[in-house]
Amino acid sequence: MKVRIGILGYGNLGKGVEKAVLANSDEELVGVFTRRDPSTVKTASDVKVFSADELPDLRDKLDVLVLCGGSATDLPKMTPEYAEMFNVVDSFDTHAKIPEHFKNVDSACKRGQKTAVISAGWDPGLFSLARLYSKCILPAGNDYTFWGRGVSQGHSDAIRRIEGVVDARQYTVPVPEALEKVRNGENPTLTTRQKHTRECFVVVEEGADKARIEKEIKNMPNYFSDYDTTVNFITKEELDAEHKGLPHGGSVIYSGSTGENKHVIEFSLKLDSNPEFTGSVLAAVARAVFRMNSEGIVGAKTMFDIAPAYLSPLSGEELRAHFL
Amino acid sequence: MKVRIGILGYGNLGKGVEKAVLANSDEELVGVFTRRDPSTVKTASDVKVFSADELPDLRDKLDVLVLCGGSATDLPKMTPEYAEMFNVVDSFDTHAKIPEHFKNVDSACKRGQKTAVISAGWDPGLFSLARLYSKCILPAGNDYTFWGRGVSQGHSDAIRRIEGVVDARQYTVPVPEALEKVRNGENPTLTTRQKHTRECFVVVEEGADKARIEKEIKNMPNYFSDYDTTVNFITKEELDAEHKGLPHGGSVIYSGSTGENKHVIEFSLKLDSNPEFTGSVLAAVARAVFRMNSEGIVGAKTMFDIAPAYLSPLSGEELRAHFL
Repeated sequence: MKVRIGILGYGNLGKGVEKAVLANSDEELVGVFTRRDPSTVKTASDVKVFSADELPDLRDKLDVLVLCGGSATDLPKMTPEYAEMFNVVDSFDTHAKIPEHFKNVDSACKRGQKTAVISAGWDPGLFSLARLYSKCILPAGNDYTFWGRGVSQGHSDAIRRIEGVVDARQYTVPVPEALEKVRNGENPTLTTRQKHTRECFVVVEEGADKARIEKEIKNMPNYFSDYDTTVNFITKEELDAEHKGLPHGGSVIYSGSTGENKHVIEFSLKLDSNPEFTGSVLAAVARAVFRMNSEGIVGAKTMFDIAPAYLSPLSGEELRAHFL
Repeated sequence: MKVRIGILGYGNLGKGVEKAVLANSDEELVGVFTRRDPSTVKTASDVKVFSADELPDLRDKLDVLVLCGGSATDLPKMTPEYAEMFNVVDSFDTHAKIPEHFKNVDSACKRGQKTAVISAGWDPGLFSLARLYSKCILPAGNDYTFWGRGVSQGHSDAIRRIEGVVDARQYTVPVPEALEKVRNGENPTLTTRQKHTRECFVVVEEGADKARIEKEIKNMPNYFSDYDTTVNFITKEELDAEHKGLPHGGSVIYSGSTGENKHVIEFSLKLDSNPEFTGSVLAAVARAVFRMNSEGIVGAKTMFDIAPAYLSPLSGEELRAHFL
């Protein structure tokens, strides 16, 4: 019997989950659910599109609903709402609001005897696991997280909101010297500026004031003012030809010790497509959520609470034979 | 209440576990147990040394017994023997015999309502986890494991058994070109020789036939004949000055895809002391074993079966706040 999965929300992440579910032979994609008019949404795999309003009637048809909304406004409402009806997975990543979100989702799960995993993906998600495993093994040590080289959609959007900008792509880039110091176990203290730089590729309207735009970008608080930022003005054609993808990645480096002996643990990702990789994590987590719920484990969880074997379709015997 | 831990076996690994338990404030080291005469064993921390014969009388004094014997002859007998009396952790690493070992340990655990985690450490252990997580997330892909640069104690011992050899250290070294191809997502097919080289530092008796010794090393089946091996003859003083440590490490690289998009996941370790790091993993696993047993989860397990949160002394709330 396959794990029957629904996807709510069909942006980049929803498309990534769709592709991932189809790549897992023990999972079945029942449908994509949208808050838009379903007739306006066409899926890559031709899987059926339903209105989100139909979800309450489909409780018996879905084992897990993967929530592909944004963390700012969608998920804080969506996850608690659906966690009472379905086992759910989300990728909520607003760090400061995780305790509140967890609590709301946990209550909903308990009302409905369902299981939810929140904040799944790679950061939060796999990177969180790397930080946790490292700290448990070597209590004396520090973790460093570097992101990139990769496209930050939030920063790209921030540039697009500037007057005169037609389109933009922003790459977050780790500073090589900082990476090297950390990898050498030097345990440096690093400022924001010392860890990452920001590279912007910007298309502007004809006759736009490039000097003003560059200044506005570089001085934008929170997004750019704490970083060394470079701004490159390019044509729309160049942007489409060379900056179409959504690559990302990064490294969690843990620098610890046992007395005088140093140990460096590194977990890194180099991803051609951020949403497709994140979608792949969510599809594996969906399998675990279903299995946990089947065993009576209910409530809100994170990837910290998932025994790794639960992410796999294979038996314990097969896992020990092939992966141990 | 602290987790009360005993260590059986006081070689390099036992010493590593001792140091690790003392570094974990929620763990208490009750004693070291030995099959030698306890009066001949002096611990680094001055913790008490008992005869292994006393273990059956100490069932109520220990929450977890960490078994620090060798995989060849010690653990296949030791783990099933003690798993009936204690929650245990071992680092059994004879891959082909894991199914049999697991079965024997599982039966013993079930007779005594105890919990055992076998094959813990970094490979098997953390490297196994890296292979498993990667495969679950990206079903289409291949994993590559590289070991080193690091000291292989088995290979060093093999050289020491050659006539005329006084002492030896063997380093396993990944081939840089192979690593690079894998990191680039090229998915190469690599022979044993293409993945690792072996570097030997050998001290010989005065007047020994170096040419014969070098030939014997390079042609030794299983250990060296499938590798490009270099042999360096050095003095005892040089060996003691420059090759005293037991550094190790390596990388698990998973090269996967979602359709046309490639993704590379890498987990790597750079360890000054292999036994101290492995001991640190066992100390974290001991905490998880105790907690699982307290919750009624009995039987033989591996690190695949441990929800990561169980390895930590912190609460779920603290973990979500600081590591997610």
